[in-house]
Amino acid sequence: MTAKALHMSTLFLRTLREDPADADVDSARLLQRAGYIRKTAPGIFTWLPLGLRVLNKVEAIVREEINSFGAQEVHFPALLPKDPYERTHRWEEYGDNIFRLKDRHGADYLLAPTHEEMFTLLVKDMYSSYKDLPLTLYQIQTKYRDEFRPRAGLVRGRGFVMKDAYSFTVDADGLKAAYQDERDAYERIFKRLGVQYVIVHAVSGPMGGSESEEFLAPLAIGEDTFALAPSGKAWNVEALTTPEVPDEDFSDVPDMTQLHTPDSTTIDSLVDQANALHPKADGSAWTAADTLKNLIVTVKHPADADHDELWRELVAIALPGDRQVDMKRIEAQFAPAEVEEASPEDLASHPELVKGYIGPKVLGPQAEAAGIKHPIRYFVDAHVARGSAWVTGADTEGEHLFNAVYGRDFDSSARIEAVEVRHGDISPDGSGPLSFERGVEIGQVFQLGLKYSNALDLKVLDQNGKTVPVWMGSYGIGVSRVLACIAEYHHDERGLAWPLSVAPAQVHVMATGKDPKAFEAAERLVSELEERNVEVIYDDRLKVSPGVKFKDAELIGVPLIAVAGRDTINNGTIEIRRRDGSASQAVPIAEASSVVLEHLAALSE
Amino acid sequence: MTAKALHMSTLFLRTLREDPADADVDSARLLQRAGYIRKTAPGIFTWLPLGLRVLNKVEAIVREEINSFGAQEVHFPALLPKDPYERTHRWEEYGDNIFRLKDRHGADYLLAPTHEEMFTLLVKDMYSSYKDLPLTLYQIQTKYRDEFRPRAGLVRGRGFVMKDAYSFTVDADGLKAAYQDERDAYERIFKRLGVQYVIVHAVSGPMGGSESEEFLAPLAIGEDTFALAPSGKAWNVEALTTPEVPDEDFSDVPDMTQLHTPDSTTIDSLVDQANALHPKADGSAWTAADTLKNLIVTVKHPADADHDELWRELVAIALPGDRQVDMKRIEAQFAPAEVEEASPEDLASHPELVKGYIGPKVLGPQAEAAGIKHPIRYFVDAHVARGSAWVTGADTEGEHLFNAVYGRDFDSSARIEAVEVRHGDISPDGSGPLSFERGVEIGQVFQLGLKYSNALDLKVLDQNGKTVPVWMGSYGIGVSRVLACIAEYHHDERGLAWPLSVAPAQVHVMATGKDPKAFEAAERLVSELEERNVEVIYDDRLKVSPGVKFKDAELIGVPLIAVAGRDTINNGTIEIRRRDGSASQAVPIAEASSVVLEHLAALSE
Repeated sequence: MTAKALHMSTLFLRTLREDPADADVDSARLLQRAGYIRKTAPGIFTWLPLGLRVLNKVEAIVREEINSFGAQEVHFPALLPKDPYERTHRWEEYGDNIFRLKDRHGADYLLAPTHEEMFTLLVKDMYSSYKDLPLTLYQIQTKYRDEFRPRAGLVRGRGFVMKDAYSFTVDADGLKAAYQDERDAYERIFKRLGVQYVIVHAVSGPMGGSESEEFLAPLAIGEDTFALAPSGKAWNVEALTTPEVPDEDFSDVPDMTQLHTPDSTTIDSLVDQANALHPKADGSAWTAADTLKNLIVTVKHPADADHDELWRELVAIALPGDRQVDMKRIEAQFAPAEVEEASPEDLASHPELVKGYIGPKVLGPQAEAAGIKHPIRYFVDAHVARGSAWVTGADTEGEHLFNAVYGRDFDSSARIEAVEVRHGDISPDGSGPLSFERGVEIGQVFQLGLKYSNALDLKVLDQNGKTVPVWMGSYGIGVSRVLACIAEYHHDERGLAWPLSVAPAQVHVMATGKDPKAFEAAERLVSELEERNVEVIYDDRLKVSPGVKFKDAELIGVPLIAVAGRDTINNGTIEIRRRDGSASQAVPIAEASSVVLEHLAALSE
Repeated sequence: MTAKALHMSTLFLRTLREDPADADVDSARLLQRAGYIRKTAPGIFTWLPLGLRVLNKVEAIVREEINSFGAQEVHFPALLPKDPYERTHRWEEYGDNIFRLKDRHGADYLLAPTHEEMFTLLVKDMYSSYKDLPLTLYQIQTKYRDEFRPRAGLVRGRGFVMKDAYSFTVDADGLKAAYQDERDAYERIFKRLGVQYVIVHAVSGPMGGSESEEFLAPLAIGEDTFALAPSGKAWNVEALTTPEVPDEDFSDVPDMTQLHTPDSTTIDSLVDQANALHPKADGSAWTAADTLKNLIVTVKHPADADHDELWRELVAIALPGDRQVDMKRIEAQFAPAEVEEASPEDLASHPELVKGYIGPKVLGPQAEAAGIKHPIRYFVDAHVARGSAWVTGADTEGEHLFNAVYGRDFDSSARIEAVEVRHGDISPDGSGPLSFERGVEIGQVFQLGLKYSNALDLKVLDQNGKTVPVWMGSYGIGVSRVLACIAEYHHDERGLAWPLSVAPAQVHVMATGKDPKAFEAAERLVSELEERNVEVIYDDRLKVSPGVKFKDAELIGVPLIAVAGRDTINNGTIEIRRRDGSASQAVPIAEASSVVLEHLAALSE
């Protein structure tokens, strides 16, 4: 087998000296300048010959690793009927984020952003016994999402290549094993592709389900923030949990008192009032950190066994006054319910709530003890220690409680994660303070559990002849997005610098100047490399200056560059150097191909 | 390199004993029963593991042959903005046949059925000189068309895999060379794929352009009719031309006379009247073949230099009374205009036309000579010989002309192909009578000429520094449709019987019965074949009867089948046979893999 070199004189390529106007990140800028991709519409790109070669190599590595544990490839259409997506409610949930269309007969279709429904129905259609499981299916496919604001080139486009896999197992243990297979493969894939990654604990997004981790490439251009512990473990913000805080000793805390604090409906005004009217015993000033604010939110639960339709519940959430509330984290804990600030109408249905002075006395266990009808559940943020003392609302206009001790003077219905996490918060694993970084999501592994099996009635007979729902997982890699991340990691001011595993060619050979001997030497090297099945780009252009050829080679970013020009040919040598600048040498023409092979062997280690 | 065998015990496959209800052709029936594809929506299919393997092999052969003459692969999105398609009027011309959608901002998009516009714009964007040409680009891609009535499985679906290529050359000669390269590659491709094909001269369809040929697979399930000459040349019906008919000697034909023929507004009534009132001189009966009917149609021309908008022209067409009119063939000759029967309003604008008695006296050259305003152009069907004598309308109520000799008594504005072709008509190349067959269009090669370059302003500088439009060709292969045609040609009543070039595996090995020795023998063969990089399906299922295993193997249709079962194992042999029944032998276990390789070598010749 021989590999045919790409000749620059005929290659469909035009490198650009200028950055495209709207390229907002390095990968988009360089991939377009070097002729890998071309923008076709907002967030929609065309793959040019060099880009398609890199994409094919990335796909091949993904395929090889996913095949290695027995996953089987299939291919669904991107255009799909509405019905399955309606049955799982995703037709509505996706809102404007998917492309929808009607066929000529008026039937609804979508361009599928992910295929959980279709894989579930396919397996249901074909399999019926535990003996057919475990099974993992996958596809590699161009998908579409109607992003409101596409950005960062291939990082967040409206069309993108995705590998999506789905596992089917008869029980939760099987799911865990399938999940682990996929997770291990992802680690191998990203290592081979030369992208950095952090595995981040994630909670369920719009997929619904139970356990999930994201693979984030740490990059400042990323839209995802993740929290990193000194242990190296990472979490996405919605998944962060606060370690149990130790109980505080409240033996010295005086009895709770209810004091007058007029015009103190905000934390700032409360602190000012407290300092003015009720100075602290130890002489220090009250701060926001001494106050406990009680937030009322409305939880919109989906219909369930007891409710025919969506139903609204008011809940109260207590959090330290010096912390910001994080509604997304709160919502994650009530999923699949949605959470919003309580409206004036919602609040009016609970006359015990005194606006600006809401406190524990009318909430949760206290409300129940007081015989209040439909008591409001009372959640206390995880940063609030049992035994800690607080200034908080007294449920009376213009009055607050002082020295209200959690666990002595009031109790809660449950613990909750309610505050915005911040630099220095203790990590979930207790290894130390958290720091926050930005990353690009390049993969996600997800234990879906029974969500789709139940919604679409995917059941099999188990070993006892009993019908049981199938446990599912879903696993995605953003193939074109990973390609962009490789470019983010592997470039310099002069252009791309691909890792060998995905480079469009292995060697970029050029002949410079006008001396036919340079071209002869270059061609000899090219043909020797072709015979050894090395992929070569050969810059054979006649009327192009050495400067342009060098610039193009560095922009295109093949890992090895071989130059036959005036300087070298007079010595009977060819210059061989690495694109990353780590090596450069002049070698006799007759040895050039062997030296190239040595470099390639070293680079592929 | 070793190939990993597919094990039937884990392969995602469920063969069906029953035909799917709506499978209307053999390929759709067998590809679904054997687990290659699954229907997802009307005309939309999912590729299962075996199907994807065959599809990949077909694609690889297409790619290899198209690459061989220097074409370069790119990949466009399927989702495209409306604008380029509006500029070429195809946005409107496609009517309901494409899927259209709007994005969240209300912008119009389509799922592109072909990509002429995008390739034209891409080349315009990147190239500007004759030095960059010739260039051929292509892609292999899933496309969508909103067929009114999808049928025949992969033959006419709404989603399908297509290879579309586009050539760009500086002149017409370059276009011819690029066209020939592609045409030659198509012949090699279809031969390697084991599909029969006929190259059919075609006229321009909705693509617009100049010269075109279609590759049709002769199959009764096809929707296209083509005409075959004794020479082996073929034409599609719209492209058929009638060879020049020799002039007839009219020296013995009496003078034209105008005779009374009341109530003769149809050919039948005219023939009856003529026989009753005006018997033929030689005593034989008048027949429809003696009459010349004059049809009036409306030609709807698109806007042009002289007309700001669509304009209507009445034209008259004369054809023998015993032939049927073929409006599609007529329309093809007026393309891009549309042709329809003239409406009563259209006819009313020409008072010289006497309904039922229209004749040459008021048409074409005769009308001009008579000083009729806006004379109607008069086309005479190509089967009408100069010198032939006719009974035709006298443009007077109840009267006809007899012995009207074409060329003596009347003349035409031009010749036209107006009649339905029929079995026995003389072929365009004069080689003899035509026969008609049905076929499936699997490829088309098309000299587009300047249509898209002009519409989208694709120009380059030529050698003299002059700006010239680029000559384009477009070339398509229906990849998934070809796959269906391969199945149409290669199956029997028991299942598929793939040619080796595209079979999902090369050998189907099975162990039958319960004797562990059979499984040992089969596994030895499998692992020997794996080591030699032979693709194997291994039926390792334990509780499946030999009958089911045989049926599945014959349904799946791998070209070689190797069986280790009770009968053979007792003799220390394995049975090796061809799926097509052409060979079957028992060979010693130790020799089995060598014999398999010999068969494969023979099959690949």
